[in-house]
Amino acid sequence: MRIVLLAGGVGGARFTRGLLDHLVASGTAADVTVVANTGDDIWMNGLRLCPDLDTMMYTLGGGIHEEQGWGRADESRRVADELDAYGVGVAWFTLGDLDLATHIARTQLLREGNSLSAATARLCARWKPGVRLLPMSDEPVETHVRLAGSDQLMHFEEWWVRLRATVPAQEFVQSGVEDASPAPGVLDAIRDADVVVLPPSNPVVSIGTILGVPGIRDAVRETSGRVVGVSPIIGGAAVRGMAAACLTTIGVATSADAVAVHYGPRSRGGLLDAWLVDETDAVLVPGLAADGIPCRAVPLWLRDTASSARLAADALAMAERD
Amino acid sequence: MRIVLLAGGVGGARFTRGLLDHLVASGTAADVTVVANTGDDIWMNGLRLCPDLDTMMYTLGGGIHEEQGWGRADESRRVADELDAYGVGVAWFTLGDLDLATHIARTQLLREGNSLSAATARLCARWKPGVRLLPMSDEPVETHVRLAGSDQLMHFEEWWVRLRATVPAQEFVQSGVEDASPAPGVLDAIRDADVVVLPPSNPVVSIGTILGVPGIRDAVRETSGRVVGVSPIIGGAAVRGMAAACLTTIGVATSADAVAVHYGPRSRGGLLDAWLVDETDAVLVPGLAADGIPCRAVPLWLRDTASSARLAADALAMAERD
Repeated sequence: MRIVLLAGGVGGARFTRGLLDHLVASGTAADVTVVANTGDDIWMNGLRLCPDLDTMMYTLGGGIHEEQGWGRADESRRVADELDAYGVGVAWFTLGDLDLATHIARTQLLREGNSLSAATARLCARWKPGVRLLPMSDEPVETHVRLAGSDQLMHFEEWWVRLRATVPAQEFVQSGVEDASPAPGVLDAIRDADVVVLPPSNPVVSIGTILGVPGIRDAVRETSGRVVGVSPIIGGAAVRGMAAACLTTIGVATSADAVAVHYGPRSRGGLLDAWLVDETDAVLVPGLAADGIPCRAVPLWLRDTASSARLAADALAMAERD
Repeated sequence: MRIVLLAGGVGGARFTRGLLDHLVASGTAADVTVVANTGDDIWMNGLRLCPDLDTMMYTLGGGIHEEQGWGRADESRRVADELDAYGVGVAWFTLGDLDLATHIARTQLLREGNSLSAATARLCARWKPGVRLLPMSDEPVETHVRLAGSDQLMHFEEWWVRLRATVPAQEFVQSGVEDASPAPGVLDAIRDADVVVLPPSNPVVSIGTILGVPGIRDAVRETSGRVVGVSPIIGGAAVRGMAAACLTTIGVATSADAVAVHYGPRSRGGLLDAWLVDETDAVLVPGLAADGIPCRAVPLWLRDTASSARLAADALAMAERD
């Protein structure tokens, strides 16, 4: 079975880990490809940070800080404190020592002329994530935010991390997307997939960003496989709080059905063959079905590895329905 | 009093610290400029390392690892171990976490378009070394080594650190020196100095490299100040062992008088107005005087801050002689 996920950071990584656990537990042979959002990528202290690629690597490779969901376990700030002492530290961003090594290694590989795909493959040779991890594009596509009442653009990471998304965003701008193309292997993986999963990642600035790379949305629409989405909204609130602010910006309500309608039913030119909502949102199932989106209500909270694996199993089961 | 030192790493830094101690203790008002060798500079993991500038900053700024003579006190290798895990670590080079922050900050400043001089000034704003610390040049001039019986060039740092200078060097090559010019302020500082000191740094790959930058040797020859050198050789052995290998390469004997003759008496087109040798080399004094190099034998070992300050006082006293 060939499975492709379009994923952002924490939610996508935890879902993917659950999927791998389920595949192993059920003895299902599968090739899993993760197409990761790189819109959060940013230069910091002369180093290239790829937050979502790293969260995926660390989560699947056993290096993640579990409680936090991002960054490395057993982290320290020896280098960052020195950068502060030099007056070049970025106060709003946590740059751990172990994490920094990833940025240094990646930046070195990029400056040596490697593509982001090649650099990612090199880093994954260490983490052995159990998936083929691809950036959505080898070209830099950075998400910027136009704050309400402002002409200035701010890097998404700064809005998200420094401002905690508390200042309303008027618009998200994918800088560089016009010149970007999907990374090698992305389109083929989507087209040839048996199942494409939209995990509970941010539908705007993670999955939305991936879909914005020319060619990717069409590949999902045209894949011969089944496309299953998992709601990132439970009971009218985003699983990872601030995603609501992103939905508001693009005029989508913070609800499991509104996000599904935003993706749209594949039968009517959209993306979804099926959609999973949380049990607490079971009331939404009939309406979504009427809108052309087959839907099931299952436990969506990724509480632990067992619940994550169960949700992944539910998603695959949903993909098999007809 | 305006004092200029042409300095390499450990020996130059310890001598300079002694000089500053002496100036404070004797209530002497002085502007001290250190022109540092940058021939050891090297790109490593995409970061720009400037070993001699750093040794000087750390030594004068109170951050040096005292026993080692280079690198930071209380150092750790959290990042370096990660780079090893990624397979991009440089096995023969110690890249401490605290030290790495310096390289990251410098590289960031350079990539933002700052000159090495400007970047050094920014880093010194933290360390407050008590001297004006100038790189010999803002252009990269890297010392390479042609190994005996080989056509290949190897970066000096690799020969020095990895091979411990055990493989004979046929030649030292200053890559980039043709296009290099002295950093802003270097020539003026030398020309206007009351005293120019050649501290007990490596006469070949530290002071020799500085003198190789077009214009610097002539500025020393032509300064209105007095030029005093301190022998890096005591009793026929280099104070920092491997310097002997460098002297051998350029055909100079490992002795305090041979190095002085190599620099040459200023009265005959060379550099030195005066020279200090160790007490154990007192026998060399008459011969050097006969060669036109006024010389004194004093305790040369930089054992501690007191002996370093005393040696600096001896050097300044020697400069005053006529």
